[in-house]
Amino acid sequence: MNESKPKAVILLSGGLDSVTVLATARKKYDCYALSFSYGQRHSIELEAAKKIAKQFEVTEHRILKIDLGQLGGSALTDMDIDVPETQEEGIPVTYVPARNTIFLSYALAWAEVLEAQDIFIGVNAVDYSGYPDCRPEYIDAFSKMANLATKSAIEGHIISIHTPLINLSKAEIIRMGIENGVDYALTISCYAANEQGEACGVCDSCRLRKTGFDDAGVADPTKYTK
Amino acid sequence: MNESKPKAVILLSGGLDSVTVLATARKKYDCYALSFSYGQRHSIELEAAKKIAKQFEVTEHRILKIDLGQLGGSALTDMDIDVPETQEEGIPVTYVPARNTIFLSYALAWAEVLEAQDIFIGVNAVDYSGYPDCRPEYIDAFSKMANLATKSAIEGHIISIHTPLINLSKAEIIRMGIENGVDYALTISCYAANEQGEACGVCDSCRLRKTGFDDAGVADPTKYTK
Repeated sequence: MNESKPKAVILLSGGLDSVTVLATARKKYDCYALSFSYGQRHSIELEAAKKIAKQFEVTEHRILKIDLGQLGGSALTDMDIDVPETQEEGIPVTYVPARNTIFLSYALAWAEVLEAQDIFIGVNAVDYSGYPDCRPEYIDAFSKMANLATKSAIEGHIISIHTPLINLSKAEIIRMGIENGVDYALTISCYAANEQGEACGVCDSCRLRKTGFDDAGVADPTKYTK
Repeated sequence: MNESKPKAVILLSGGLDSVTVLATARKKYDCYALSFSYGQRHSIELEAAKKIAKQFEVTEHRILKIDLGQLGGSALTDMDIDVPETQEEGIPVTYVPARNTIFLSYALAWAEVLEAQDIFIGVNAVDYSGYPDCRPEYIDAFSKMANLATKSAIEGHIISIHTPLINLSKAEIIRMGIENGVDYALTISCYAANEQGEACGVCDSCRLRKTGFDDAGVADPTKYTK
């Protein structure tokens, strides 16, 4: 624990965005990383989160096992729904119902226990998949709710939800990460990575990632199967 | 499933309040009951929820196992904190950080999967323990957030969070439940019930319950150890 910095809870998926957030936040905050085992298709993402949490020397990394897959409704948690290989109209089937709301709710609970007032989440509303719970108006509404929800907020300790990536392009995120020491070879973005951690190269998340590295003029360290 | 009624997700703890909510909601809604195994001190509460869900013939009853206890911070989930026997000043130690936010987030996820637009929660801001996440302003803020969070809300299916008990006294809740067929002998309110389901008689929740039955002029069927 670093006594000179304020504590912050960082939602860490092991993907490109959340790792960039951690790399940036750690300069000013004593970081507590929070990941979830929620029935996602592969555990490679969690292995990536563990390596990254260690590399960036977070004060604590918790992985909560939660029953999100049991509710179904998404290609990311329901094996009966295929991850699409072409871009879809509207909100895609990889959307997990209320996922960010559930993740932020746990972050809020842990922040209260830790007496932290800062929560970081790597949502992005530019190069994103169109998920409703990545938009600024959603984050603002969550923040207002959070400040009415908790004992600590009632006692005057205002909770801030930080979204440092929300208005950045994928290329800008990648440049920010590289400046802050991120090794993107460790991160996983693919919705359908195999057990060796190789990315499919064709899902929406892979497409956004590839384009981001191209636009940033940075070599993409990802291993793609196609 | 009852095709003639709209679907609703009912948060069901097995306590007096949520059971009364279910008994009332089932007249107009096709009910999907949602309970949580979250590291609470006793599983008697979940056994009560199961019996009640069966008695009221809900279409489905899901019990999600979630890692709330792992975050600590409450006498209800942390065995190192005693449940107090006297009334406390301010927000009591039985407060579980962000509990209703986490519960409502899961209800929101399930509602989206079920294509339900109605969620019921038995919060009460009159005879309650002073928890911040039982107040109307909190519920309003959650509702605004929920309607920005989900794919279905974006597509125009507005989610309503119903709190039929929020302005009722405990006595009024008990009268409402009896009119709607609740057998309160099946419900558990105690924060420290023993394995036989007997209530301690002295915790905040037992005190509110006892006074409620007295005020309602109804015999209290609860087995108290003191």
